[in-house]
Amino acid sequence: MTAKGTPSPARLTFGKKLRAIRRAKDMTLEDLSEASGVNWSYISQVESGQRNIAVDNMWRLAQGVGVELKELL
Amino acid sequence: MTAKGTPSPARLTFGKKLRAIRRAKDMTLEDLSEASGVNWSYISQVESGQRNIAVDNMWRLAQGVGVELKELL
Repeated sequence: MTAKGTPSPARLTFGKKLRAIRRAKDMTLEDLSEASGVNWSYISQVESGQRNIAVDNMWRLAQGVGVELKELL
Repeated sequence: MTAKGTPSPARLTFGKKLRAIRRAKDMTLEDLSEASGVNWSYISQVESGQRNIAVDNMWRLAQGVGVELKELL
């Protein structure tokens, strides 16, 4: 089990892939915030692995960048 | 955006696939709890879509049943 506070590999992968796809689509954090309903500063922290994001928001962000959630893992 | 309290499709898919794979591997909730470090009653609620589980615990449960997280989405 991962120690409390140590991000899982999945958390880091999700953040990196989300950022890469968002940028590849020329979306700003503000664009993705509008598309997903998730706060832009929270998205920024998710992209850098600082937040243990829950599945419903993961799904909203995947929808916001237009991919299946599994593509971000 | 999904209304607050309405489970996302990803949440429901994760729960259903986790339960199917756990059962296919003849693991009880207690077995998976031991393998993942996640409380068994919490796992039961996740499997039925009642919990908005976070990515680190999703990863632990995928590890616990021996699959990649993306296979549960």
